[in-house]
Amino acid sequence: MSELRTIAEDGDGVVILDQTRLPAQTAFVRLATLDEAAHAIRVMQVRGAPLIGATAAYGIALALHEGIDLDKAISVLAATRPTAVNLRWALDRMHRVLGKSAVVARHELAWQEARAIAREDEEANAAIGRHGLPLLQAVGRRPVQVMTHCNAGWLATVAHGTAISPIYTAHKAGIDVHVWVSETRPRNQGLLTAWELNHAGVSHTLIADNTAGLLMMQGKVDLVIVGADRIAANGDTANKVGTYLKALAAREHGVAFYVAAPVSTIDFDCANGAAIPIEERDAREVSHGDTPVANPAFDVTPARLIAGIITEQGIFPASGLAAIKR
Amino acid sequence: MSELRTIAEDGDGVVILDQTRLPAQTAFVRLATLDEAAHAIRVMQVRGAPLIGATAAYGIALALHEGIDLDKAISVLAATRPTAVNLRWALDRMHRVLGKSAVVARHELAWQEARAIAREDEEANAAIGRHGLPLLQAVGRRPVQVMTHCNAGWLATVAHGTAISPIYTAHKAGIDVHVWVSETRPRNQGLLTAWELNHAGVSHTLIADNTAGLLMMQGKVDLVIVGADRIAANGDTANKVGTYLKALAAREHGVAFYVAAPVSTIDFDCANGAAIPIEERDAREVSHGDTPVANPAFDVTPARLIAGIITEQGIFPASGLAAIKR
Repeated sequence: MSELRTIAEDGDGVVILDQTRLPAQTAFVRLATLDEAAHAIRVMQVRGAPLIGATAAYGIALALHEGIDLDKAISVLAATRPTAVNLRWALDRMHRVLGKSAVVARHELAWQEARAIAREDEEANAAIGRHGLPLLQAVGRRPVQVMTHCNAGWLATVAHGTAISPIYTAHKAGIDVHVWVSETRPRNQGLLTAWELNHAGVSHTLIADNTAGLLMMQGKVDLVIVGADRIAANGDTANKVGTYLKALAAREHGVAFYVAAPVSTIDFDCANGAAIPIEERDAREVSHGDTPVANPAFDVTPARLIAGIITEQGIFPASGLAAIKR
Repeated sequence: MSELRTIAEDGDGVVILDQTRLPAQTAFVRLATLDEAAHAIRVMQVRGAPLIGATAAYGIALALHEGIDLDKAISVLAATRPTAVNLRWALDRMHRVLGKSAVVARHELAWQEARAIAREDEEANAAIGRHGLPLLQAVGRRPVQVMTHCNAGWLATVAHGTAISPIYTAHKAGIDVHVWVSETRPRNQGLLTAWELNHAGVSHTLIADNTAGLLMMQGKVDLVIVGADRIAANGDTANKVGTYLKALAAREHGVAFYVAAPVSTIDFDCANGAAIPIEERDAREVSHGDTPVANPAFDVTPARLIAGIITEQGIFPASGLAAIKR
């Protein structure tokens, strides 16, 4: 691969950047089978709602190449991770497109549709960057102080990122930006964000998750932008656990709190946040001791704490998602 | 040492439990000099505001044994850590008591006064347990679900603990208690709390700090009790960074948020939280990479978010500390 990409086609397979090895190592893994694609999603070699969706779409193409039945492939991939709705969205789309075609034509069609999903994600995220840019331009001081959580950069997507896309767009436009990067225990995805920002030359500071409230109290944050794993129809947003604490602190200190996500992250069938399943992950992500552990991977931020949802169609109030074209 | 204690006299020295080795190893360190005492406080072999105070008092006795001048010893110890006011409180007390006596009598007097400070801390924390017990008894379900942050157990004190003292008292009284133990990045003092609770047979679950808001939203927390490093005269409370985020979430969900601390933690000379110095610690506590890091060790929870301060004199409203006998 001539440049770093999270996912790229490679003959009859796809090559992914193994995010479990970052930031220490830049290593690639070739996925050639359904099981390899499912494993990559499950163990978080690929992560981030949009990238999970694209990987699942390619996983269908790999499965069909193996001669595995479409419905079987969909059910294996759907079971990998429960919270990110882009996974289900991508599988539903593959099912809709492929279900109409003759079985013999499906393999080629699957590649085409997965490629379309990946390209559309790239375009959507570039548009998120353009729509989010004015939020940073409107801040009256330099550097603009943005806080984020987890990794919603290009690593979480096919390209550009969601929450970080407006930051990249602003940086390229010459706006001085500084990013507070929350460590994001237990999986430390903040290190991925720091790695991305370092490579892009964007000023940033890594902090323990616990530090978010203090920084806002000290007036050191102008704007919070986070990604999303699933946005309910009413605007309630599931994202990496700890997002909700940042939203509460942002409201307390009058800091605008934005969610950035492609429309594929909105689950119009899900009435509100209470209906979003929260993935419980392995205790060993938190502790290798014999201490009892709870490890929910996501939390839900109520729509009323969200200043707006930045999508490829523009910025919408969290309570106004019905206006979005599906 | 026949039983585990955080600090105990040992001939002309004191023996401390090395908390940087816990929970993996139970190791003791003998302190015989001023420099060793200052080092133990600085690198957090001893930690927790009350224990820092007691160790500093003994450090004065060690310094006088070495023939070091009282004022010099006080200034060395005072410089070890800036936020915990018990450190300054203990040194002020040593200065007041020793300053009145002849230089030749000071060494013996220093031992006596350090011993008195340690004994009083033990008694105060037992009283905090008794005063806090009714808060747990009043909860209508079993187990009572308590959340804490950092370590404010016996490890943070001479004995019994502050925030954990009411939990131990309730446990001994046969009340079924379960404790949500927040990991407390970057130093992971939650592992110390889990270790303590495990040894005491108190049910507990370790969580990433990010999980606090979700658990409160899910109705899984009845009560939050934390310790304090410095309480301003108006009730604003500095405690381990991340405390403030828990206080915000507790208020949002109608969960009572209590601070437990001996009166020696109240800084009546400090008008409010804005005047409390926040210690910035080494970047390597957060990351060993070359990423820029900010690592403030404490944050300030405004008095209005605190349901009460549990002291050895009883429970006081955070805005009513003037009623406390000094």
